[in-house]
Amino acid sequence: MLKQVQAAPGTGIDAFFSAGSVAVIGASDDITKIGGRPVQLLRKYGYAGAIYPINPKGGTIQGLTGYASILDTPTAPELAVVAVPAQATLQAVRDCASRGVRGVVVLSTGFAEAGPEGAQLQAELVGIAHNHGMRLLGPNCLGAVNVVDRLVASFSIALEESMPPAGQIGIVSQSGNIGSFTMRCMADRGLGVSRFIATGNEADVDVADGIAALANDPATRIILCCMETCRDAGRLIQALDMARRQNKPVIALKIGATEQGQAAAASHTGALMGSDAVFDAVFRRYGVLRVHSFEELLDVGHAAVLLGAERLPTTRAVTLVAASGGFGIMMADAMVQAGMELPQLADTTKALIREAVPTAGTNNPVDASAQMSARPDILLKMLTALQNDANGSTLVLLLALSLYNPRLRGVYLEALSKIRASHPDRLLVIISRGPADAVAEINALGIPVFPSIPAAASGLAGLVRLGQLATLPPAAAYGGPVEKVDAAVFRNEFHAKKALAAAGISVPREEVVASADEAVRSARATGYPVVLKIASEDIAHKTEIGGVALDLKDDDAVRQAYGRLMANAKQHAPQARLDGVLVAPMVRGGVELIAGVSRDPVFGPVVMVGMGGIYAEVLKDVAVQVAPVSEDEAARMIRSLRMFPLLDGVRGQPRADVAAAARTVARLSEFACRHAGDVAEIDMNPILVRPEGEGVLVLDALMVPTSSSTPGH
Amino acid sequence: MLKQVQAAPGTGIDAFFSAGSVAVIGASDDITKIGGRPVQLLRKYGYAGAIYPINPKGGTIQGLTGYASILDTPTAPELAVVAVPAQATLQAVRDCASRGVRGVVVLSTGFAEAGPEGAQLQAELVGIAHNHGMRLLGPNCLGAVNVVDRLVASFSIALEESMPPAGQIGIVSQSGNIGSFTMRCMADRGLGVSRFIATGNEADVDVADGIAALANDPATRIILCCMETCRDAGRLIQALDMARRQNKPVIALKIGATEQGQAAAASHTGALMGSDAVFDAVFRRYGVLRVHSFEELLDVGHAAVLLGAERLPTTRAVTLVAASGGFGIMMADAMVQAGMELPQLADTTKALIREAVPTAGTNNPVDASAQMSARPDILLKMLTALQNDANGSTLVLLLALSLYNPRLRGVYLEALSKIRASHPDRLLVIISRGPADAVAEINALGIPVFPSIPAAASGLAGLVRLGQLATLPPAAAYGGPVEKVDAAVFRNEFHAKKALAAAGISVPREEVVASADEAVRSARATGYPVVLKIASEDIAHKTEIGGVALDLKDDDAVRQAYGRLMANAKQHAPQARLDGVLVAPMVRGGVELIAGVSRDPVFGPVVMVGMGGIYAEVLKDVAVQVAPVSEDEAARMIRSLRMFPLLDGVRGQPRADVAAAARTVARLSEFACRHAGDVAEIDMNPILVRPEGEGVLVLDALMVPTSSSTPGH
Repeated sequence: MLKQVQAAPGTGIDAFFSAGSVAVIGASDDITKIGGRPVQLLRKYGYAGAIYPINPKGGTIQGLTGYASILDTPTAPELAVVAVPAQATLQAVRDCASRGVRGVVVLSTGFAEAGPEGAQLQAELVGIAHNHGMRLLGPNCLGAVNVVDRLVASFSIALEESMPPAGQIGIVSQSGNIGSFTMRCMADRGLGVSRFIATGNEADVDVADGIAALANDPATRIILCCMETCRDAGRLIQALDMARRQNKPVIALKIGATEQGQAAAASHTGALMGSDAVFDAVFRRYGVLRVHSFEELLDVGHAAVLLGAERLPTTRAVTLVAASGGFGIMMADAMVQAGMELPQLADTTKALIREAVPTAGTNNPVDASAQMSARPDILLKMLTALQNDANGSTLVLLLALSLYNPRLRGVYLEALSKIRASHPDRLLVIISRGPADAVAEINALGIPVFPSIPAAASGLAGLVRLGQLATLPPAAAYGGPVEKVDAAVFRNEFHAKKALAAAGISVPREEVVASADEAVRSARATGYPVVLKIASEDIAHKTEIGGVALDLKDDDAVRQAYGRLMANAKQHAPQARLDGVLVAPMVRGGVELIAGVSRDPVFGPVVMVGMGGIYAEVLKDVAVQVAPVSEDEAARMIRSLRMFPLLDGVRGQPRADVAAAARTVARLSEFACRHAGDVAEIDMNPILVRPEGEGVLVLDALMVPTSSSTPGH
Repeated sequence: MLKQVQAAPGTGIDAFFSAGSVAVIGASDDITKIGGRPVQLLRKYGYAGAIYPINPKGGTIQGLTGYASILDTPTAPELAVVAVPAQATLQAVRDCASRGVRGVVVLSTGFAEAGPEGAQLQAELVGIAHNHGMRLLGPNCLGAVNVVDRLVASFSIALEESMPPAGQIGIVSQSGNIGSFTMRCMADRGLGVSRFIATGNEADVDVADGIAALANDPATRIILCCMETCRDAGRLIQALDMARRQNKPVIALKIGATEQGQAAAASHTGALMGSDAVFDAVFRRYGVLRVHSFEELLDVGHAAVLLGAERLPTTRAVTLVAASGGFGIMMADAMVQAGMELPQLADTTKALIREAVPTAGTNNPVDASAQMSARPDILLKMLTALQNDANGSTLVLLLALSLYNPRLRGVYLEALSKIRASHPDRLLVIISRGPADAVAEINALGIPVFPSIPAAASGLAGLVRLGQLATLPPAAAYGGPVEKVDAAVFRNEFHAKKALAAAGISVPREEVVASADEAVRSARATGYPVVLKIASEDIAHKTEIGGVALDLKDDDAVRQAYGRLMANAKQHAPQARLDGVLVAPMVRGGVELIAGVSRDPVFGPVVMVGMGGIYAEVLKDVAVQVAPVSEDEAARMIRSLRMFPLLDGVRGQPRADVAAAARTVARLSEFACRHAGDVAEIDMNPILVRPEGEGVLVLDALMVPTSSSTPGH
């Protein structure tokens, strides 16, 4: 909204992570104050660069020389942290600009989140930053941290006790609290963080900048992202694509999935909320793993870090092992519900398992019985047999109480250590609630530990998604011109379909006629039976005024229907401008789809495809994606519909021409991009999908202009 | 299967919990052996009764006098624990019987779970027990524990380190491992257990016995139950009803929800698996809260114990409070998705919140900002305002990092303690990951703490279900006679519908005719238009052989159709016995439902209702319940369908006569009970549901006999 500069996302963000000197404007001796905290934290954790506390009173602040103004510091700081009241930020940011600061973090509150006055002030801050090529983080944010170099431009409570260890996890979050909590929880699991950036009001720097910067940051191997909305879809998509090309997994906790959550987010951030389903589609397209809880973010993030991009699973196959049949059943239920598969074991593997434990059940889930852990050599024999099985699955071993028992803990750790050494490339995952130190020991072997069966099931399904990141097809892009559409398309279905036909979409042979004689001539040319429909831009619901006549079988029927339709229109819609009557073939058979284009407040033109009919409407059985979509992507959308079996030959019906339907959706999405300037909405309803090889026919279509292209708006 | 005796569930189970003396047959000095453990645990935890170790060698066992046989003990033991090899159990159980033992626990393995030979042995054990009025727990089980009286008839590893505190939780589990783990995890949370019973192979004592015993046990206030399947549905239902009448919440982890999980369970337990959907329905009917993971069992169980039956929530309203807008959004999303509601706060409440924290957002979720915890009095003021609000909601407060900070922890604990004292009856729930000691302190105030937002959301939804237990309507019961049905109902739809009509179900006026003249006479009496259908018990798919003629408008059409149908039948099904042709009115309009009866391997006759049509079939949009169902229950089943909006006046359609549809389903379910002996399946498809007040019509029906009532079977 406020942005004028459109450099690639990530540009200039290094100022927040690699500054050699930092000024804290509004610095305080009181370390409980927002202006006291950054100075304290920079010193406490040993930041190597110069720290310049700025306070009008000057003097000594937390043992450092204070300066009355940033203009007085001995060298020009590369980064400034602003912690003064909102009214004073304007001067502070002006001073930063004139001092040549590259990045400024505004921690202060009282901006767009507080009302129109604050929004005005925020706009002025951004104006100054843009005019001076300075990046501005915040306002109303928790700032940035470079954990590796101990550069703390933040007052996060998560840093009060200790700094997380330096590591591979980069954290980007709109919400400072959620981001901080992520950093703290990862540190508690012994995992290192590379960089942390909380974007707050996102007046300038946004989540896309953060993701892009971390995609290009060699210290970061995995990106955890928490977002409420997106202020610039194009930049977000660019950033996600950068991460994909670097093969860096992005795990996103996007919140505001429900109407109530979105209402809370809108009042909290002041930003427009895009459709949650479209966010889902975009994440899927760019290989981002969307998680739905904080715990899932931690669990999957933890496992992904331990495995690294190289060891992520690429298949859904799992072999489940527990000492109890009951736990095996629970694992099987959860894994299958999460979309994982349970292949059978080879006969040789089964024989080896029975050699180790004669009473073991050798189906998958393997019921290994408590005998499994009687001795380390028995356990090792069983695990070796399982890891040698050719089914290529991930081995999932559940330990309920075992690690709490000192003897059994020893048995398991010895066997797990040996199996990791002998099978470094085979995937092995543990499910265990603890104790924490035993879990840490297993983690140290490079083995992920999930705290529960549901966490392991959704976690493994997520890891498979991340493991397929490298093989993700690139997203379709529209590279053509944006053109004006012939305004006639908004007038009636005939012109709408004509335009779609010109774009490569199949429509029936149709004609608009102005007399009963013409109607008969056209019907004969079309071939009986035919349909007549009134054609008028002023009549949206033709059926309701008696403006449709179906299944007309001969000249007489057509002649009568023409008269009746015209009469009905004149009687029920006397003001309507009539273009005439549309003559079209009466088409039957096939399965009905609907497809359309709408405009998402965040992502722009979005294409939708769904099953036709009232049942599907009640169930909202639709798939969406940002336009354009390739034919492959459109086919995946169609296949994702819950009622797809209707197109796939259920109950002995012929299979429908899904390829032609996908082609239609792809052409529609291109049309939407080409005419993004003046076409706001398109509805194609119904689309008749005929048996395989026989194509589709769009039987009705409606286009709605953008408000800017509508006369009178 | 093996049971002959059918005493009420729970009869004689006190033997396992209140025995004044215990014999351990197969007792050992080695405390790592199954026969050594019960002796060790009984002594270690101070069981007050006599302990008689039984071992052919006699001598001293773990410091106690050993006896060569149970026949030699100074007094007759009330309870015996058997830990000898399978082959030796028969003699052991015989000895127990002749000594007058009331309950015997067979820990040994090698029975039904091991194959047909073991199953035979198991049947013999049960025979002895039944003949002597002795209850038998197991075999292949983890036994029973009375925590209050330290009576340990088990070798559970969960008891190795310590005994759980005595408390209100009763645990019933088929799987010893899952039950043990539950007991251990509850103890780790500081929660006390009353009794534990693991039923293993359930040769005699089953989960129903355990539930019934705990329902009648004054020490038990809540029942946690883990089950894989059910061997006797009638007893399970009786037991659940006993718990309901005692207003004791039952929380059930029923595993084997997927095909793969059921396959694993079947191979593990050797028992038939009932439909998971029917289990769901039965649990719902008796107010059992079904949970889907071990963690949910612990979390909801924990909260329910803290609240007691008196303080359980009875409304879905929640007021959400967090110090961060982001967490508020996450809470709103999760709560709404779990079916909770977010009422707005009163204006006076909003004003009081702003008095406490001027920058707070006062919508629900409340964005209280970090200022909330600046001082204990501010927090108390805000919480008091929220608890005084008249919306009657449960207050849910999220604490992310706060409890980890010593100062904030003090602020929160002080305010929470005061608010509990001032508002003892208002519900307050915390979401926090820890630290564990702070969570324990909050729990000690009687405030439930959920470890995550999703856990709190599903947990609260579950608690509301439990809170409504006392208001649950009693389940319908069939008290009439079981009668034979006229065998003609299996012959054709005419007779099937006639029988249903006699049971109070609306069907069209119909007649079977044997000539074209009769068909015309019947059609005139019915009123045009009519339908003709071939009537034959040998032709299941009438349409496919051209055996149906729709929408016949006059005598001629009927006459021609009659001839055509008979000719088609003779040509395409020359062997079929023809009963003639059915004449029925052509009925249009309304919404189509389907309903039917099938036989569940566990629960017997089950009634199903679903939306009609291929869309609904693909989506399996059906609801099931054990027959009979009341009209109210049938209406709830219909309303639970995903496509119910189609019956509820979507898109300007008239509302359908749901009451009449519910009446039809209820009548069908009674019919199924009355004829449970010879009717295996009933299909009513379609049922035309007309607009409100106009009733329903069952247009087609089919009945399938049980194999025992089919000639030739």
